[in-house]
Amino acid sequence: MGEEVGYLGPPGTFGEQVALRYLQQSNVDATLRPLDSHVEVVRAVDSGDVAYGVVAVENALGGAVPETLDAILASANVSLCAELTLPVEHNLIATPGMKTQDVTVVMSHPSALAQCRGYLERALPDARLEAALSTAGAVERAVANRGYAGIGSRRAAEVYGGVILAESIQDENQDETRFVVLARHDAPPTGDDKTSIAFAVDHDRPGTLIAALSELSNRDLNMTHIQLRPSRRGLGLYVFLIDFQGHRSDAKVAEALAALKAQTSMLRVLGSYPRFKGA
Amino acid sequence: MGEEVGYLGPPGTFGEQVALRYLQQSNVDATLRPLDSHVEVVRAVDSGDVAYGVVAVENALGGAVPETLDAILASANVSLCAELTLPVEHNLIATPGMKTQDVTVVMSHPSALAQCRGYLERALPDARLEAALSTAGAVERAVANRGYAGIGSRRAAEVYGGVILAESIQDENQDETRFVVLARHDAPPTGDDKTSIAFAVDHDRPGTLIAALSELSNRDLNMTHIQLRPSRRGLGLYVFLIDFQGHRSDAKVAEALAALKAQTSMLRVLGSYPRFKGA
Repeated sequence: MGEEVGYLGPPGTFGEQVALRYLQQSNVDATLRPLDSHVEVVRAVDSGDVAYGVVAVENALGGAVPETLDAILASANVSLCAELTLPVEHNLIATPGMKTQDVTVVMSHPSALAQCRGYLERALPDARLEAALSTAGAVERAVANRGYAGIGSRRAAEVYGGVILAESIQDENQDETRFVVLARHDAPPTGDDKTSIAFAVDHDRPGTLIAALSELSNRDLNMTHIQLRPSRRGLGLYVFLIDFQGHRSDAKVAEALAALKAQTSMLRVLGSYPRFKGA
Repeated sequence: MGEEVGYLGPPGTFGEQVALRYLQQSNVDATLRPLDSHVEVVRAVDSGDVAYGVVAVENALGGAVPETLDAILASANVSLCAELTLPVEHNLIATPGMKTQDVTVVMSHPSALAQCRGYLERALPDARLEAALSTAGAVERAVANRGYAGIGSRRAAEVYGGVILAESIQDENQDETRFVVLARHDAPPTGDDKTSIAFAVDHDRPGTLIAALSELSNRDLNMTHIQLRPSRRGLGLYVFLIDFQGHRSDAKVAEALAALKAQTSMLRVLGSYPRFKGA
């Protein structure tokens, strides 16, 4: 049996769309496997049960990002080998033959309904809103019921045989969603890469963070993301998650990592991978 | 008419429970007003439509935290006047007379169902899961339907006349949820306070962040939270949100803020408020 890519199912989620896109752009030959949660995806990669896993690490619709990050930190075998940052894109999907004015019930994950509030108030002010466990589940049910529409991905319309009544209906102020691809290895250098690291800093010694960040800025390694997580292991201990430009095999990055290791109580290089360059 | 506190409705949400608790601990005399989204709560405080607003700023169940933070940054009249950090606590709630073994359908917001996965697999492996737009809506419907149970707050059981079949059923690894109370003013010093600020840093000058953080650490002002948000205003510009110990009227804090103002392209003091000391 060939390699598998785990993602947050069911088929037709935004995560499946991202997994398909990763396979296409990386020329990896693998089949998709829907799993029940992002944490399960991380664990399946860690145990070797799947070769790759796709998880959202910012603005996830179907799961808590903090739990996903904690699962990655707890999984020693897991590396980041790619990133994909995609705009939130929701579509109104129904059974073939339906028109927007025939829609009486709109179903989706509550967060997706909230992200399309403006469109729904303008175009379907009288429709009743109904919750679903996932956007894909909503589209599946909507396609089976005349009068219903589901809000979901383009891929969900394809998977469940629906038609798109209106595309890109999310409110304007929506963030992008950042996904990472996990494997038991990271990616070779391409000349335009990013590296993700995690390190622990004692809460009562704020100077440690500054010393650590200086190791990056002194070498002109631009940070693209910084996040603080309380450590599960003890009170007053924080874990910083930082992304910066460069590959761990670059001389400057290797130097910075060695310096960081000497200054922090825990340092883990989560992986180096090509910077995502968009559509 | 007296003062009002806006929160993410409907009645019985975790947000309502937090709002009630704030009124109790602060001796503020106000009535509660459910609103449709966290962004609406922020705007209602900004316009003076409500005197106070309660929003989740970490691990929100019913809405995207980034959108809430962006709304606060865009609302010049809004200050933080209190914080409350509470453990995620979910309860299994049904109509009086029901027992756990009679439950055939469990309803809730999909995120709440996900946060109780372990309990549901152990105690109700055969129950069907159904999504609801909010935990409160789930409890309301469950109480009206024999055989159903809803997952929600203690307050939801009270509001909709349900009984708690099992309490605190969330999985062990759940984070706390941090709420802030918004008003058109912040809070007077108590001797044990925190201050939240936002400032913009040019992405291409990572040294600026370090200089800014040094203004805090040089004065032993411990950071308790740091977060990076892409600025809506321009590419390559980032907004840092930082919480640290101390009140803006403390001499050391006032000095640090003056120094920060001189070094950053935008600085906003979002407010000083008492440090939350738990239950």
